Amino acid sequence: MAPFIATTSAPVNIACIKYWGKRDTKLILPTNSSLSVTLDQDHLRSTTTSRADPSFKEDRLWLNGVEENIKSGGRMATCISEMKRMRKELVEDVDASAPKLSTFSVHIASYNNFPTAAGLASSASGFAALTASLAALYALPSPPTTLSLIARQGSGSACRSLLGGFVAWNAGELASGLDSNAVQVAPESHWPDIHALICVVSDTKKGTSSTSGMQRTVETSALLQHRIKHCVPQRMADISAAILARDFDRFAEITMADSNQFHAVCLDTAPPIFYMNDVSRAIIAVIEEYNRVALLPENGGKRKAAYTYDAGPNAVIYAPAANIKEIISLIIHYFPQQDAFKDPFGLFGTAGVGSGALVSGFNESVAKTWEAGAVKGLIHTRVGGGPRVLGPEESLLGDNGLPLKTV
Amino acid sequence: MAPFIATTSAPVNIACIKYWGKRDTKLILPTNSSLSVTLDQDHLRSTTTSRADPSFKEDRLWLNGVEENIKSGGRMATCISEMKRMRKELVEDVDASAPKLSTFSVHIASYNNFPTAAGLASSASGFAALTASLAALYALPSPPTTLSLIARQGSGSACRSLLGGFVAWNAGELASGLDSNAVQVAPESHWPDIHALICVVSDTKKGTSSTSGMQRTVETSALLQHRIKHCVPQRMADISAAILARDFDRFAEITMADSNQFHAVCLDTAPPIFYMNDVSRAIIAVIEEYNRVALLPENGGKRKAAYTYDAGPNAVIYAPAANIKEIISLIIHYFPQQDAFKDPFGLFGTAGVGSGALVSGFNESVAKTWEAGAVKGLIHTRVGGGPRVLGPEESLLGDNGLPLKTV
Repeated sequence: MAPFIATTSAPVNIACIKYWGKRDTKLILPTNSSLSVTLDQDHLRSTTTSRADPSFKEDRLWLNGVEENIKSGGRMATCISEMKRMRKELVEDVDASAPKLSTFSVHIASYNNFPTAAGLASSASGFAALTASLAALYALPSPPTTLSLIARQGSGSACRSLLGGFVAWNAGELASGLDSNAVQVAPESHWPDIHALICVVSDTKKGTSSTSGMQRTVETSALLQHRIKHCVPQRMADISAAILARDFDRFAEITMADSNQFHAVCLDTAPPIFYMNDVSRAIIAVIEEYNRVALLPENGGKRKAAYTYDAGPNAVIYAPAANIKEIISLIIHYFPQQDAFKDPFGLFGTAGVGSGALVSGFNESVAKTWEAGAVKGLIHTRVGGGPRVLGPEESLLGDNGLPLKTV
Repeated sequence: MAPFIATTSAPVNIACIKYWGKRDTKLILPTNSSLSVTLDQDHLRSTTTSRADPSFKEDRLWLNGVEENIKSGGRMATCISEMKRMRKELVEDVDASAPKLSTFSVHIASYNNFPTAAGLASSASGFAALTASLAALYALPSPPTTLSLIARQGSGSACRSLLGGFVAWNAGELASGLDSNAVQVAPESHWPDIHALICVVSDTKKGTSSTSGMQRTVETSALLQHRIKHCVPQRMADISAAILARDFDRFAEITMADSNQFHAVCLDTAPPIFYMNDVSRAIIAVIEEYNRVALLPENGGKRKAAYTYDAGPNAVIYAPAANIKEIISLIIHYFPQQDAFKDPFGLFGTAGVGSGALVSGFNESVAKTWEAGAVKGLIHTRVGGGPRVLGPEESLLGDNGLPLKTV
């Protein structure tokens, strides 16, 4: 009999309307809705292979080749048991001939194709890949929005990585969390022109974890409730409309405002939480100046880029594809690179980026030129699709049920 | 006949509840009340000499020896003309024998005893000294709260420098601004134990001016109105009660929360405004750790210091006198000084501060050790009194009506 095995990959997503605060820490129910762009798995992805076998003694999981301890009642155990429950209810209880995979232990191997040192949160793509691979293994008939309820319990923002394009995570109202799911606002094919440049920023200090940080904000910020009740609902509606209208100017305005407001409520926390550092601030100054020039009537009067920052110093800059070459040149002007820019879209040809050029009318003094390494690397990617089921040649588990790849 | 001349000094004040936003930019009426500590003029002060003389052709003003252009309708012209109006109404119209000083031009010389490079706002002490010196010259019977209405029109926070100790600036409600004045919550003698350590932080970048920055926040921040309506009124009441009860723990908690909330609404502005830099953030981390240790039950369970930041990267650390030696040692541990600490209170004796010591139980890793010069200097001062009328030996104007001192 062929082994019961499935391999999937899942994408990273970066929010435009930020998730910050839980109303239920066990079920991971958020205090507000959020919205993100799913990034292309051709560049950044988590890949996961799941195998169920009656010979396995217990559920085991390896992350980047290192075995993790699946704690009972922990987030990984919750996702695995919830997926087994769905297998039983939706498949085995319906079709008596279906193998009783829900009774077998599973071995799971997961691998991120981006280094941990990049400072990109891997929990979103990782839990999305875990959920998607178990859904494939168990042949669940469930759509991504249903699966998002499970991924959410692994890591909140993971629910948004189960769909491609532009994805909203509804806060929901039910205590059960059954309405706190991810839905697609628009597929990547609606607006494929949205590209992203990730600026990996060096940081000497380990920041506050988002799990503990967001609850400190919920407990101490005097501004958070106003954000939740009055700012986010309007922004969710406005940015969804901007996406449907492919209105980048409005998309950028809201994205930057919400990134800044998220960091503002972090600062309004006791003790205050800082994720951005002086390099992050300098990137903001460069993009704000770039937009100031673009907003001049003679230059078209519309924003050309949008920065956003998650719980760390890295910038993600969203922009229409046509602007990315200019933006990379600007960033490299202020933040010289130690390593040559990897140019996946071939923007710069064989000559490379060079020392970085400014655009006409740009006020150079908005930032200083930093030492090489202040921005450690640049990753150019774009909006992309949801999880993919991969062929057996991509399996991370060998015939012996143990990881093939060690990192 | 003796010349009509008066010299006064006025103090710096540093707010615990921050002023940010005007409801009337001409009259300088704020969107919210604020509260500050007046600092001792023995250390930081502006001194101003005003002279009225029938031979003077026009109103002239020298700041640190350099003549300023008194623009018609500008803030200095407004203060001078308002003070002349008060002279006429309160003195000359009441006592026909009083010299008609309101009809003479004035020469005014002002001098700050702290360098501009220190990054301390000199407009508050400067406009307070201007107002106080004209009030002395004109022999006005007006109490400081009345004079504060004039100083406020020069620079909003100047109104608080007309009183010593702990001073509230009432936002007021009248369109005329007649109820937007400064009142003393408690004199310096009520709580003389409050000391302050100013950490002068080096910054490479000129920040946004507070005048333009606060209006950008009023126009674009989605959080500011919530701060104004719901946070500040309660904090004004709570910190006033803490001051009257000499409750430093509560005073510190509110002061730090309000500094952080002020910078949060700056960040919630479009484009965002940043005044604190990585050095400012590191000082916050050190003081938060100092308080974390102090808040342990075995250490007394109360905060021992409070940081606050105005529209720039400098920290002001308030603390009871007994803690300042420990705090200076901590700061110097992380921020080595290029120049020896000037020790006005003789805390360290002839041996000096040395390399800076940590307190027991302190987690050293909350910040890195910075290069010398990141904190350019430390100024130790304390709560102090309101403006002082000085003797003729302190005059900044010579017999010829021109400045004696050039800087």
